[in-house]
Amino acid sequence: MSDLLDRYAAVAGRESVDQLCQLAAPLKHITITHVSATPLGGGVAEILHSMVPLTEALGITTKWQIINGSAEFYQCTKDFHNSLQGNHTSISSAQLKVYETINEANAETLRHNLETSDVVIIHDPQPMAMITHFPERKNKWIWRCHIDASRPYWPVWKYLSGFAKQYDASIFSLVDFTHPLPHPMFLVPPSIDPLSEKNRDLEQEEIDKIRPLFGIDPERPLVLQVSRFDRFKDPIGVIEAFRLARKFNPGIQLALAGSGAQDDPEGEVVLGEVKRAAGNNPDIHILLLPPDAHRLINALQRSADIIMQKSIKEGFGLTVTEGLWKGKPLIGGNVGGIRLQVIHKETGFIVNTPEGAAYRIRHLLQHRQIAEEVGAAGKEYIRKNFLITRHLRDYLSLIYSLLFESNDQIELPTVRP
Amino acid sequence: MSDLLDRYAAVAGRESVDQLCQLAAPLKHITITHVSATPLGGGVAEILHSMVPLTEALGITTKWQIINGSAEFYQCTKDFHNSLQGNHTSISSAQLKVYETINEANAETLRHNLETSDVVIIHDPQPMAMITHFPERKNKWIWRCHIDASRPYWPVWKYLSGFAKQYDASIFSLVDFTHPLPHPMFLVPPSIDPLSEKNRDLEQEEIDKIRPLFGIDPERPLVLQVSRFDRFKDPIGVIEAFRLARKFNPGIQLALAGSGAQDDPEGEVVLGEVKRAAGNNPDIHILLLPPDAHRLINALQRSADIIMQKSIKEGFGLTVTEGLWKGKPLIGGNVGGIRLQVIHKETGFIVNTPEGAAYRIRHLLQHRQIAEEVGAAGKEYIRKNFLITRHLRDYLSLIYSLLFESNDQIELPTVRP
Repeated sequence: MSDLLDRYAAVAGRESVDQLCQLAAPLKHITITHVSATPLGGGVAEILHSMVPLTEALGITTKWQIINGSAEFYQCTKDFHNSLQGNHTSISSAQLKVYETINEANAETLRHNLETSDVVIIHDPQPMAMITHFPERKNKWIWRCHIDASRPYWPVWKYLSGFAKQYDASIFSLVDFTHPLPHPMFLVPPSIDPLSEKNRDLEQEEIDKIRPLFGIDPERPLVLQVSRFDRFKDPIGVIEAFRLARKFNPGIQLALAGSGAQDDPEGEVVLGEVKRAAGNNPDIHILLLPPDAHRLINALQRSADIIMQKSIKEGFGLTVTEGLWKGKPLIGGNVGGIRLQVIHKETGFIVNTPEGAAYRIRHLLQHRQIAEEVGAAGKEYIRKNFLITRHLRDYLSLIYSLLFESNDQIELPTVRP
Repeated sequence: MSDLLDRYAAVAGRESVDQLCQLAAPLKHITITHVSATPLGGGVAEILHSMVPLTEALGITTKWQIINGSAEFYQCTKDFHNSLQGNHTSISSAQLKVYETINEANAETLRHNLETSDVVIIHDPQPMAMITHFPERKNKWIWRCHIDASRPYWPVWKYLSGFAKQYDASIFSLVDFTHPLPHPMFLVPPSIDPLSEKNRDLEQEEIDKIRPLFGIDPERPLVLQVSRFDRFKDPIGVIEAFRLARKFNPGIQLALAGSGAQDDPEGEVVLGEVKRAAGNNPDIHILLLPPDAHRLINALQRSADIIMQKSIKEGFGLTVTEGLWKGKPLIGGNVGGIRLQVIHKETGFIVNTPEGAAYRIRHLLQHRQIAEEVGAAGKEYIRKNFLITRHLRDYLSLIYSLLFESNDQIELPTVRP
């Protein structure tokens, strides 16, 4: 077995890798090509960087093509992105023309690669319009939407769905993100890579170094929330919960860790609010981390006693996935993908208010055994459902069904039926 | 300091990272764009995957663009590659037309990105001809050649040098690989990434597991050569040296580790020869590893007592860099880049014959203290000269000189003046 498969087996479990090998067996003669907008930076590049070698390690020829575009093009696709997330962004017909022209140019340079692949997976809106230039295609084209398009700005969705309809299938991350399309639609939740810097195992020595680095007492309990300083993540609510819990557990400490608010005036404002709410409490640590601090966040999560994600609005919530993967008891808000990952009292705790969160903090600190059991169950749940091995398993299953089964509407079971 | 810079500082030394920060300070306002042919697979993608985030971590805006091409295009650029390495490959004018047309198309899709970058670094021949479509450019274009072009097929070099001449500078890996060009030419040797799976530190537990996996005795000394089964790597000479050394050290074991000979009929033949030369000796282990076995090779190197690279022809010899980085005493052939890395009796040993290699094996096994000292010196030499931090330092220095100094011929000092 390949080195990479062995390494995934060691963390994701031998059976999930065996299952991948089984699913890959009938697909060994095919070629899969992913097309995305950038080779580095952002979630899509990150997942493809793990996904492509993993698929190759299974013996399936897998390619990854990057489209090129102009500044106007990227401005336009950025506007698409924001519009799908609900912003009312006006996009001129001149911009749409740029979008279509760049897609046409890329369709030509990629034509041979795409025509000779059995399956083409187009990620997000940037390369989406290329499909119109392959009217005679005989292979399967899948549109993979990574964006929370639950409440899109309608004119933009209407425009983009004109392209989406031409695909043989589409993949969305959550049922809430989907819109009816006239072809098989699949739900494939996001995933984390257990071998990445953000999620890989760390030596205890490295974990032990992290608290002193930030002046956090290694002896007393630590509650941690990792997220942008954004009102939807409710950092003020976290501080409120902490203050309430502290009345009963005076030793506890809180850390709120997030990237510095570059390019984000809103983030600056929220950060100011958070600092005021924290006051001069020496046990509330506001950590502004560089955007590449993956390993540091990994160590912080592993060093925490309780992880919170008290969001009041959330897409999928990959920070929850990451927190649970560290085997920590997690307290999460009752929204979005958090509910998909946290089964209340089994893999973590769902709360609706700061008071509820405070109660759970106290409860978990008093019942360390429960904290440990729920943390372990949370990790196991992530292992089974939200690692990249499961992500690829879903891709291979749906590719199999598209290539070899009837073209009737097929839907994979979602993770929690 | 950023997480990534800290991690490099931990392995490459704080001073080399401090030096990078110093060099980056006057370059913080510039944008560097790398252009290459693929986002994944191959040495160029591998180095850019480390280089781009590292440059970004220093505060310099750094982009990475990928060109697109047709099958004919890639066939043609593969022929270029082989021709630069000395194969007499006939390339038709129709193929050259494809090469130029694809370059023109990519020049258009990348125009904005390239025109708004201060420095454009074009890697290898694939995107090389784009430059002809930027006659009015005001920024600096550098051609980075990663190929051993010491004895190119002349008609092909003549054609390609027509493009090379239009650049503001070019970078070659070794002085032997260069040809006169009418602009500043820089020598920047290759490098390894100390954080990659191939080179990162491993726990002793993981290293200890590797020998039993292949039936190698953990108690007796192990000599290891990692390389393709290729006559230029002289695997038969290694076996000969092993047999000679064994007369005096009957306990020693040999492992020859390489990828299986996929798509390589020549490799199959050589492998057959090697197997015959090994005979039924249970202490000669021929290991055919999957191409992604980076971590496994890492562990093998760390588990060896002596590492050999007895090549009779070699480009730079990255396996030597990797071996020395593991702190092992290394015995290398007297060719190519091995001589750049191995200072005889200081950072390793240079040999010309199997007899010479056998003598060094015996000598190193008898003088464990010397073996350890030379191994440590070898590692230190790699740390100073052949890590990606030094690679980036050279790039930043030459960029600085191109942007801010006079346009006179400038040459960086080579590693060993």
